[in-house]
Amino acid sequence: MSSTAASDGAGPGRPRTPVLGAELIAREALALIDEEGADAFSLPRLAARLGVKTASLYNHLDGRAAVIEGVRRLVVEEMDVAAFGALPWPDALRSWARSYRDAFARHPHAIELLATTTISSPATLTMYEAVVSALARGGWPRERLVSVLTCVESFLLGSALDLVAPPIMIDTAGQAERVPVLADALEGSKAARADRAFDCGLDALVRGLEDQLTALERYLTPPQ
Amino acid sequence: MSSTAASDGAGPGRPRTPVLGAELIAREALALIDEEGADAFSLPRLAARLGVKTASLYNHLDGRAAVIEGVRRLVVEEMDVAAFGALPWPDALRSWARSYRDAFARHPHAIELLATTTISSPATLTMYEAVVSALARGGWPRERLVSVLTCVESFLLGSALDLVAPPIMIDTAGQAERVPVLADALEGSKAARADRAFDCGLDALVRGLEDQLTALERYLTPPQ
Repeated sequence: MSSTAASDGAGPGRPRTPVLGAELIAREALALIDEEGADAFSLPRLAARLGVKTASLYNHLDGRAAVIEGVRRLVVEEMDVAAFGALPWPDALRSWARSYRDAFARHPHAIELLATTTISSPATLTMYEAVVSALARGGWPRERLVSVLTCVESFLLGSALDLVAPPIMIDTAGQAERVPVLADALEGSKAARADRAFDCGLDALVRGLEDQLTALERYLTPPQ
Repeated sequence: MSSTAASDGAGPGRPRTPVLGAELIAREALALIDEEGADAFSLPRLAARLGVKTASLYNHLDGRAAVIEGVRRLVVEEMDVAAFGALPWPDALRSWARSYRDAFARHPHAIELLATTTISSPATLTMYEAVVSALARGGWPRERLVSVLTCVESFLLGSALDLVAPPIMIDTAGQAERVPVLADALEGSKAARADRAFDCGLDALVRGLEDQLTALERYLTPPQ
């Protein structure tokens, strides 16, 4: 079957129906997750959508984890790392963070699945390499690179989770007198509140990281 | 059955086996989630653990959402809001954030379930009221209170998700030459890295929020 996979989308004899291969499997898996939720994701269900037997999937990839890595690659490809080569790290971090959240906003059900499975896809590692390399060029010491990457990503994943939350996430109905400050402060739609909270948090996080680096450089540079 | 529920844990005739009631149901639901994961949570499974029929649960509460709110209350009760009455808001936020993460570290599988269901339990609203009231006393304007609360909580939930991730979350095996900065920077156990990233992010976020408030106060205060 590997010859079939290798002929995907190429050659004059290309059939009108796309030939089964890792790319098509990943795209259909993402469509399944988008349309039916992460809980619905299973290889039998995916095979049924593709009109093949479950065993056929194994001719093209290594099982469930490989499909999830394919889905991760598709979502990561929607994120923009170009800024890391062009802008100072705080601006690049802001730009990447927005494209990261936008990508998950288009695929909210993929979040839970991707946040808790091992990352090994080349596309994702390449993205992380772009982030930590830009941080290193910006002056961050080696032992802080993964912390900065991870804490920003934690904020991004937590913000993305907000996108799968119900329209009324905090319901003060019937309790407003007991929690007056909270009830009074909850205004606007949940989507508008989520956007404002994301802007507030991203700005605070990047500002705070800039402060940290300044403090660190002062500490690391011996007095003249 | 409501008389049975009302007699929970009270009265001289109390049996040695705890009587079914909302509190016992919530505790058993949390134990089920802790031991078997969020996906295993269902009312039939919960009823089986309690040795009762599923229908009996409905004598004590309103269904699945009510059980989840009971679970949320138990987790929230492990978080410490006392600091909001005693310390300046940045220190109180740090202290609360640590207790929040610690609570989810003890119940990692509860995260996905609680992060994406509507919050209406009085205990949780009371916690949020303590947070936003302290922020308001600290000088934050009303229209920023929910943003600050939400962005900190997004970071906390994202960090907590890290606690359910596999021991090797970023796997550069066989790809280290292609992503040298990342491979070199990944050191220590995942748990140690998660702790460092949490410290880094919490410090940055709170520093950044302090900067934001200072900038805001400067903007809001007319020049003398």
